[in-house]
Amino acid sequence: MLESISQCEFTPEEEIRRRIEKLKEQMEKRGIYLSVILHNVHIFYLAGTVQKSVLLIPLEDEAVLLVEKNADRARMESPLAQITFKGERELRTYVRKYLVRNGKCGMELDIVPFSLYDRWRRMLDGCEIEDISKVLREIRAIKSEFEISQIKKSGQIASLVFSEARKILKEGEREVDIAAKLECIGRMNGHQGFIRMRGLNQEMMNIYVLHGISATIPSFGDVPISGYGTTHAIAQGPSLNRIKRGVPTLIDYGGGYNGYVTDETRLFIIGEWEREILKKAFDCSYQIVNEVYSFAKEGTAAIEIFERALTLAKEAGLEDYFMGYGQAKVSFVGHGFGLEINELPVITGRHRGELKEGMVFAFEPKFVIPGVGASGLEVDYIVRKWGLERVTDFPLEVVQL
Amino acid sequence: MLESISQCEFTPEEEIRRRIEKLKEQMEKRGIYLSVILHNVHIFYLAGTVQKSVLLIPLEDEAVLLVEKNADRARMESPLAQITFKGERELRTYVRKYLVRNGKCGMELDIVPFSLYDRWRRMLDGCEIEDISKVLREIRAIKSEFEISQIKKSGQIASLVFSEARKILKEGEREVDIAAKLECIGRMNGHQGFIRMRGLNQEMMNIYVLHGISATIPSFGDVPISGYGTTHAIAQGPSLNRIKRGVPTLIDYGGGYNGYVTDETRLFIIGEWEREILKKAFDCSYQIVNEVYSFAKEGTAAIEIFERALTLAKEAGLEDYFMGYGQAKVSFVGHGFGLEINELPVITGRHRGELKEGMVFAFEPKFVIPGVGASGLEVDYIVRKWGLERVTDFPLEVVQL
Repeated sequence: MLESISQCEFTPEEEIRRRIEKLKEQMEKRGIYLSVILHNVHIFYLAGTVQKSVLLIPLEDEAVLLVEKNADRARMESPLAQITFKGERELRTYVRKYLVRNGKCGMELDIVPFSLYDRWRRMLDGCEIEDISKVLREIRAIKSEFEISQIKKSGQIASLVFSEARKILKEGEREVDIAAKLECIGRMNGHQGFIRMRGLNQEMMNIYVLHGISATIPSFGDVPISGYGTTHAIAQGPSLNRIKRGVPTLIDYGGGYNGYVTDETRLFIIGEWEREILKKAFDCSYQIVNEVYSFAKEGTAAIEIFERALTLAKEAGLEDYFMGYGQAKVSFVGHGFGLEINELPVITGRHRGELKEGMVFAFEPKFVIPGVGASGLEVDYIVRKWGLERVTDFPLEVVQL
Repeated sequence: MLESISQCEFTPEEEIRRRIEKLKEQMEKRGIYLSVILHNVHIFYLAGTVQKSVLLIPLEDEAVLLVEKNADRARMESPLAQITFKGERELRTYVRKYLVRNGKCGMELDIVPFSLYDRWRRMLDGCEIEDISKVLREIRAIKSEFEISQIKKSGQIASLVFSEARKILKEGEREVDIAAKLECIGRMNGHQGFIRMRGLNQEMMNIYVLHGISATIPSFGDVPISGYGTTHAIAQGPSLNRIKRGVPTLIDYGGGYNGYVTDETRLFIIGEWEREILKKAFDCSYQIVNEVYSFAKEGTAAIEIFERALTLAKEAGLEDYFMGYGQAKVSFVGHGFGLEINELPVITGRHRGELKEGMVFAFEPKFVIPGVGASGLEVDYIVRKWGLERVTDFPLEVVQL
């Protein structure tokens, strides 16, 4: 019955066991004897459910999911051993069984609020607590074939949305109306509803339709382009700006399927380019995308990708506009994604690190020309031994209407 | 130019000054000489912008907004004194000026992640840090007339969506398709894009279209009804379930305008009721809503409202199904809203507390009959001296199609 009302591709048990094993390897290296997982994204990753629960991963024992609610649903979705509890006292009783004097515990300190941390510190009997998120983010950076299959389904939704945009984008329409219609189409064709982004104050829409000046407003977020929004209370996303002939529109769409997101951008234009510089910027983005596609593969340094992109932007005389303008410039040209939109790797000139097989990343060489508009592309890649594999099949060229 | 592409009702300066004064009163009572505000919802409340910044509120001095980006936008939106900074070292320099030896600082410890707290603890030179969120949540519980005017605009979007649902809801359609279309309509008519909910793992959609069994699945969240969703990775919201004649559909819509949300539910049915119990449950919800409307006003105890509702549910023989079933029963029948969907007051039998003028709350007597369906209403109220004022004007009766 319930199968018929949702898309139930549960995470395969062997996949969950493998992820937990990887975490345990890292726990052992760091002398962590117990991980306490509280964030729903990590509970989903390690247990296969987002039902309200606490996931205990003892180094020397089986992982156990302590479920507050909905226990029936968690049982259906997660292959892990489960215990139902009600209230903090019961929780404490179960947790206590796993405690070791003077041991070190792992928690997601980048995301667990201080007051919750403080309750757990007491629950863990004052043992030393180390951040386990960094380790988990690194494990999550390498996607399995199961995960890649989910990501590709998310990408199919994105392709469909871009394809429908050909019909929906019209002169005189407002950005927000086009966004609303395309979001509706995405949702009716399998989008999960919302997409997740990690961190305090990190908020995200599913779709950004940005045109002319609204695409140039610097964002409060760590993204090159996110629009002006319809209110300063949200301060991102499509605005009430109306589409004009000759001015390009960026459509940045976050697909979402069974937990897995994608993040691609295409450029649309009605009629002939009014401003040569925006065309030139697009051509440069396109060139960067093709160039990077031609050489990047497992083992390529992220810095090399960033610098190649920057060099091409310089050669085109567009360096000042590359990845934002002035103070709003961001330091990366690509980012990982998966269960969240901001995963590892980061493709930047700042950190070392190289591409590994199974990584996925959104590559987004974009240009912001203040007072004029924005131009560029965003393409999702899977890193393979032999090169990069595209997630979607929607063409990269400007969509000319 | 920018005014024309968004709805710019900036928070009035006197309003912001008044809010800061209220916070300072509480800081003084608690011996807190400096509050450090990091969460975008509170920065919006106290400074009028969500641009990336740190808001310092010294008890004995003017509040100052330290803006990381976008400074131009923050300057346009916030009446407070502003300083632009780049990087943690510059931030530290500005913060240091406000530090007092052995003083006590306020931070939002319910929401600031441990690792960020830890950085700030060092930045604040090891001074004692107390949670300021509780105080802020209490201040925010009383809405000004400016806030109420924004909430009413959010409610207008909700009324329009319910009204359009009369045309969109059709036999054989899937919950998710109806939700997608109605969400599109809301967005095109002024919805801000997403709505905010406070707390770790608290996630929210703008719309829930729930029908029959999908409305009965216990939620992982602290809400009576939130649907099965289209995937277990999200585990809430509309599902792929198709609308049948004679079975009611709950439409729970979160309006959102200029930062302010609303939260109302109406019941729709095509043809005659197939199950008497769902009709009886609706009638009971309707009776509870009318009953509470007839007596609640400033000074009414929240417990009294909860108990009156529970008594009516008992009299109808529906106590077991009231506000959820079995383990999934929630302990409240109403909740405050504003910049977030989960604000104070909580209308519950558990805590004391009484209604104060300017409070707003969503009153949601709902029933979940396992295996059958859910039934009920949710209505937003403004607390006045003389009684309750409705936020929207959309009728409460079942919408018969």
